[in-house]
Amino acid sequence: MRGKLLYEGKGKQLYASDVAGELIQVFKDDATAFDGIKHDVIAGKGALNCAISTFFFERLHEAGINTHFIRREGEREMRVRALSMIPVEVVVRNVAAGSICKRLGFEEGMELQRPLCELFYKSDELHDPMITADHAALFGWASSEEIGFMRTTALKTNEVLSTLLKDAGIRLIDFKLEFGKNSSDGIVIGDEITPDGCRLWDMKTGRKLDKDVFRRDLGNLPEAYHEVAARLGISLA
Amino acid sequence: MRGKLLYEGKGKQLYASDVAGELIQVFKDDATAFDGIKHDVIAGKGALNCAISTFFFERLHEAGINTHFIRREGEREMRVRALSMIPVEVVVRNVAAGSICKRLGFEEGMELQRPLCELFYKSDELHDPMITADHAALFGWASSEEIGFMRTTALKTNEVLSTLLKDAGIRLIDFKLEFGKNSSDGIVIGDEITPDGCRLWDMKTGRKLDKDVFRRDLGNLPEAYHEVAARLGISLA
Repeated sequence: MRGKLLYEGKGKQLYASDVAGELIQVFKDDATAFDGIKHDVIAGKGALNCAISTFFFERLHEAGINTHFIRREGEREMRVRALSMIPVEVVVRNVAAGSICKRLGFEEGMELQRPLCELFYKSDELHDPMITADHAALFGWASSEEIGFMRTTALKTNEVLSTLLKDAGIRLIDFKLEFGKNSSDGIVIGDEITPDGCRLWDMKTGRKLDKDVFRRDLGNLPEAYHEVAARLGISLA
Repeated sequence: MRGKLLYEGKGKQLYASDVAGELIQVFKDDATAFDGIKHDVIAGKGALNCAISTFFFERLHEAGINTHFIRREGEREMRVRALSMIPVEVVVRNVAAGSICKRLGFEEGMELQRPLCELFYKSDELHDPMITADHAALFGWASSEEIGFMRTTALKTNEVLSTLLKDAGIRLIDFKLEFGKNSSDGIVIGDEITPDGCRLWDMKTGRKLDKDVFRRDLGNLPEAYHEVAARLGISLA
């Protein structure tokens, strides 16, 4: 079913498919951090991320939020709509952790009074610098209207994911979304939603169940991702 | 006329005055860069900055833009209204130079299609990180309305200063404003407007006439500031 390899990133590959406008997204077992300086191959990670992202995309569709997801087609493969990616990542934060703590001097774990959206320009060489909607418009990365839609969608997504995870005893600390567009779908969520791009803390113990386990050598990554999948009732088949 | 020293920064001192609600702002001869790592004392710089800032504040008042400036009271001293400072700096850019080039990978000298306002959280320890209006509101540094007013005022100030400087053969590349408030004046421009916080390039030759002369060891700083003052017709008396 896979055609030509069109793109290979740190965690995924995109292949042409047998249908125009549809691609096959393959989740790799590679784990990377710190702009690729830390790298490892973790057996089973691709399948876990594919299953978890499938679950989240399906729940978003049920909530009326559009994504590029069509269907899962294998252990590590999903069929998605082809998108022209917008080079601006949206991060939604409910609790301070990661880069915002370093940038603004906050303690990890500080509750935010409301969810905060941050925008980052996607550029490995520049290490994804934080930008504003004004930069995005002025430099042609996304219009004000597009950023407005992405922000609203990201905040709705935060509500859906936070509720799902809360019911599984997990706090959604923050997460990253990427968006893309095409002529038939408009702007939709692309990429993936997995513990690679979220921070997930056990609500009772605070135990980290996300990529920080890898970044900070806190234990066994697949075990943590398995725990997330199991608590959400996700089948790994 | 000077009372107690209330505040000492890298480039200025603030003293109590004989009138409640008014302070004496003294411009020092110190030059610092890179968060104070580079430091020098440059005779005459304080007087030049006091004269140039007086000139700009007076022109802004004529244009209906309020500042803390009351009057010059000595070679290096001006009387100002006491303000509670807002910890958010506003930078207006007409041409890419300095931190935006490093952050976003632009060539120094790239024309911007329209003036860009950037916001920075004032914190020496954090090296003045860039923020958005959303951070300012969420973390209590300034309300959305306050940021909106600061932004509008900064863009109006850009028009006034750009025109004055253009007539003197100087291009206003970028500049920084600080704002403060008190119960009688509302929000007004505070601090200073000098070549320490602006980038000023000769329109014909591109020669730098601002603090980059010091930052990058490009020549004689007082000579450059004198040139700015002379071209603007500023008396140094």
